[in-house]
Amino acid sequence: MNHKEPDMLADVHVTILAGGSGTRLWPRSRKEHPKQLLDLLGERSLLQQTVDRVLPLVPIERVYILTGPDHAAAIAAQLPGLPAENLFIEPTPRGTAPCLGLAALRLQQRLPGSSVMVSLHADHAIIHEDRFQAALRASVAQARKGDLVTIGVVPAFPDTGFGYVERGELLGQENDQPVYRVVRFTEKPSLERAQEFVDSGRFYWNTGYFSWTLDSITDAFRALLPDLCLRLDQIAADLAHQASDEQVANTWNLIEPVTIDVGIMERASRVAVVPADPGWSDVGNWAALYDLLQRDSEDNVVLGNSLHVGLDTTGTLIYGEGRLIATIGLQDMVVVDTGDALLVLPRARAQDVSRLVKALQAHGMKKYL
Amino acid sequence: MNHKEPDMLADVHVTILAGGSGTRLWPRSRKEHPKQLLDLLGERSLLQQTVDRVLPLVPIERVYILTGPDHAAAIAAQLPGLPAENLFIEPTPRGTAPCLGLAALRLQQRLPGSSVMVSLHADHAIIHEDRFQAALRASVAQARKGDLVTIGVVPAFPDTGFGYVERGELLGQENDQPVYRVVRFTEKPSLERAQEFVDSGRFYWNTGYFSWTLDSITDAFRALLPDLCLRLDQIAADLAHQASDEQVANTWNLIEPVTIDVGIMERASRVAVVPADPGWSDVGNWAALYDLLQRDSEDNVVLGNSLHVGLDTTGTLIYGEGRLIATIGLQDMVVVDTGDALLVLPRARAQDVSRLVKALQAHGMKKYL
Repeated sequence: MNHKEPDMLADVHVTILAGGSGTRLWPRSRKEHPKQLLDLLGERSLLQQTVDRVLPLVPIERVYILTGPDHAAAIAAQLPGLPAENLFIEPTPRGTAPCLGLAALRLQQRLPGSSVMVSLHADHAIIHEDRFQAALRASVAQARKGDLVTIGVVPAFPDTGFGYVERGELLGQENDQPVYRVVRFTEKPSLERAQEFVDSGRFYWNTGYFSWTLDSITDAFRALLPDLCLRLDQIAADLAHQASDEQVANTWNLIEPVTIDVGIMERASRVAVVPADPGWSDVGNWAALYDLLQRDSEDNVVLGNSLHVGLDTTGTLIYGEGRLIATIGLQDMVVVDTGDALLVLPRARAQDVSRLVKALQAHGMKKYL
Repeated sequence: MNHKEPDMLADVHVTILAGGSGTRLWPRSRKEHPKQLLDLLGERSLLQQTVDRVLPLVPIERVYILTGPDHAAAIAAQLPGLPAENLFIEPTPRGTAPCLGLAALRLQQRLPGSSVMVSLHADHAIIHEDRFQAALRASVAQARKGDLVTIGVVPAFPDTGFGYVERGELLGQENDQPVYRVVRFTEKPSLERAQEFVDSGRFYWNTGYFSWTLDSITDAFRALLPDLCLRLDQIAADLAHQASDEQVANTWNLIEPVTIDVGIMERASRVAVVPADPGWSDVGNWAALYDLLQRDSEDNVVLGNSLHVGLDTTGTLIYGEGRLIATIGLQDMVVVDTGDALLVLPRARAQDVSRLVKALQAHGMKKYL
């Protein structure tokens, strides 16, 4: 691989969380074909694009995919260069803390504790890759100083669907990027508070991207989640001794779910944030996808391989899989037509698709999930 | 058959115009499967329901279906009791005047000229069949006096999609129904004029239902459309002598299209109207169909065999053919999902579906027509 500064990042290992389901992109995103494995933005899947984005910094041998057993085969197929041992499979979903904690312990078995672990998500979009890479380099540099470092995105508008990171004092510059102490993490705010956050200039969208040394993060787990850490130690030891899947699962399934934000980041003392403005999106729902894509002369976004014939149709996202889709008088709507399910809603209601999927679950309509 | 007054209607023959295409009910209504042959309202097709509606008055042997060659086989299959010779097939569409004129001449060949011909449409809906039958009996009685008689529907609202019939002096009562002289026929009015029509109490929706004796209507053709009538005489004679389809078509195709309203009814001197309020609809578009059907507790109408899961969805018509249809935040919309085409529009735009079908035609998308 060609690295501009090979020495700088030679001990950096990138984990990518690829276990989500993306229900708000139903009916395209399904249990069997989750959002991160779909080609929602171009020819490559979101997971493939995430890997493509880090390969200028680290080779594929230092990329690790964290996922559940259901998607391991599909992920291996999408990433033919990924070493088989770099696919970390958790038996059941237990939140991001056990998942990242176990990955850190497993890496620590084979690497110096000063090595840097970067954690990314497999289902986000980034327009300006250079800005992302610059922020990542800065976060790695700050992580070497012993901080748990997150990348915060400069908010473009007061989104109430994201968590926010509030910055404190300036710690310095790394790779020409300012780095700040984190004052606190805030869960999804009201619109009023979100507007205050944006106006203040001190708040960033919480991306869930982290950099830390293996020693820093495992120390944090030992201090803040000691019971969990004991179980993870057990599992890491079992895995090192080729324990059976069943034995690993037996210990893993005793774990209580907890997120890395709640379990570690909101409680750790040395947390830092590197601000970035890389044209980031969590591609969280159909409206977010619409915002990311090229519009036609009527401000519509037409995806898939269906023909769309529209009269007085504007601001509308159309996805189809072959059927003719005809629309009259639609403004700012979403029409998603898949083989077995059709979804129609206003773009402004895009967040509510998860409610709909819960309703399908509640009605036992498993074949559509 | 069981007739209450068999003698009264023993010389009545009912023709049913079944040649329309119903493009505003696309994508259910197609060239191959036009509106009148679809089971839009219950288990029987609109054509079958039209026939069912007259069978208490006349037996199937005195019912005639007027259509084009494309749908003859489907019509014969839907009406197994219909004598084969009662299917009158016109080679190409030439408007309602040539079609009804030829039917009258063919009936005149085998029946006394005093026999009454009733003409109905195959693609309308009627809720109160008793009121319709009472009006039909009155129109037949008035027709025996030599008038060309139409049935006018008391307008429920100022519809701008219908033609109107203006009544003049009261001619008398037939079967306890008032009968009026017609002052004039009016094409689709502006909303303002339509409101004046409704407020006046003197205007009726033009149903296109007629009663006349064979002598009255053929005399009117001879007087008002003499050139057309000569061609129709020729065709009727050819048909009586088992002329080839090609010979008939050669003469027929020389005919210039003209409607019975424009060619005869608006110009004839002795035209009468029997008002009726039978819960009539021309089932002209998806909004009209919505108005005719039972709504659920959310004011939605769900048709076909699809499952509908709606969040905050009201006043919406959903038609599906098996796919799951999920909607969020739809008010007063129409979603029609067929095997190869999907249509989404506000109910208020239902009239514009014909524009859409014209656009499909213009783009050469024949497979969807």
